[in-house]
Amino acid sequence: MAGNIEARLKALDLTLPEAKAAIGSYVPFVHMNGQLLISGQLPMNDGGIAIAGTLGEGVGLTQGQEAAKLCALNILAQAKAALGDLDRIVQLLRLNGFVNATPGFADHPKVINGASDLMVEILGDKGRHTRIAVGCSSLPLNAAVEIDAIFAID
Amino acid sequence: MAGNIEARLKALDLTLPEAKAAIGSYVPFVHMNGQLLISGQLPMNDGGIAIAGTLGEGVGLTQGQEAAKLCALNILAQAKAALGDLDRIVQLLRLNGFVNATPGFADHPKVINGASDLMVEILGDKGRHTRIAVGCSSLPLNAAVEIDAIFAID
Amino acid sequence: MAGNIEARLKALDLTLPEAKAAIGSYVPFVHMNGQLLISGQLPMNDGGIAIAGTLGEGVGLTQGQEAAKLCALNILAQAKAALGDLDRIVQLLRLNGFVNATPGFADHPKVINGASDLMVEILGDKGRHTRIAVGCSSLPLNAAVEIDAIFAID
Repeated sequence: MAGNIEARLKALDLTLPEAKAAIGSYVPFVHMNGQLLISGQLPMNDGGIAIAGTLGEGVGLTQGQEAAKLCALNILAQAKAALGDLDRIVQLLRLNGFVNATPGFADHPKVINGASDLMVEILGDKGRHTRIAVGCSSLPLNAAVEIDAIFAID
Repeated sequence: MAGNIEARLKALDLTLPEAKAAIGSYVPFVHMNGQLLISGQLPMNDGGIAIAGTLGEGVGLTQGQEAAKLCALNILAQAKAALGDLDRIVQLLRLNGFVNATPGFADHPKVINGASDLMVEILGDKGRHTRIAVGCSSLPLNAAVEIDAIFAID
Repeated sequence: MAGNIEARLKALDLTLPEAKAAIGSYVPFVHMNGQLLISGQLPMNDGGIAIAGTLGEGVGLTQGQEAAKLCALNILAQAKAALGDLDRIVQLLRLNGFVNATPGFADHPKVINGASDLMVEILGDKGRHTRIAVGCSSLPLNAAVEIDAIFAID
């Protein structure tokens, strides 16, 4: 029987992408002492980076939010690969949001809301997390956004 | 009866700002398993962003340190909102310091010392924390500094 | 008797640099409740910053990887100062990798692999960690890379 979170994903018509392998000798997740740490996830679909470029120069706010949403789905894909069952999530503790952004760009919170809103939509109160949102001079593979996460788990 | 930390704030003639609401669907703090995570705080007073702009271009070192100090006061304001009593702080474990800075700027540690020094001044040995200090291409609302925190709590 | 990790360092012909003092009123490490947090480390040898400048402009990929490797050695030097014995490391949970990088630079993962590969080489499976790799507009003392770490410890 699929769990509650899986049912919510289905109701929202969302499909998790494949959990991506790490680009290097690190690992996509570590699970220890009730915490699940997820490595920085990029806005990838199964074809690679879906949204590349810089906010404030070429990439608009809506695209940036879409990129953040894709990062969030990749975070959940890693969580599922780690836990088997997403219902083992007790609380999303933290999202660290990194936005590929020009000097003077000021809407990082609106960009990362693409991930934050989705987490609350999918996980409910268990998705209410602390967060940072900051601007980066550049990001891996020219991704528009990178987000990592920490969950408390059962 | 006011606690020890409150007394210290008073002795230092410091007033905590109002704990700010999150700019989005995240939360300003999460308290779980003996850790208190605080979302990234900006140099806000009760009128909004007090110190905006870029270190190395318009914003000087003293202003940057003042911005970091304001971030630290906002972190403590969130901690008080979360805990009720600041004396429940066992240890400040971490400050992550993000400085809105030009390429070539090199004094991020001096900027973030504005927060680090204040934490030790207020919390004593419980305020001695680990830290990062890095340069960002831009920050939310054009803030000069953003800092988040993790506390161990009782 | 030297421990297993010390023996591995020797076999790899690696010498840990001196554990550096913090540049400010913070501390290089905090050890609490089974976690060891290490402050952001720079590519320093005993003479100071060894690799300064910006990836994508002056600093090449190989130099960037060397800088990341130096950060990793400084992280282990701090861990040894904190723990006495590196064999008390249960798992490297996280590396946060910050690369001093131009807009458009895209190879942050390859740079930070300089640290990730070394951690696995030295610590074996205990060195397999989660990670972020992002681009910074500038870094302290114009360092090419800054990396911080969280270990689970005995």
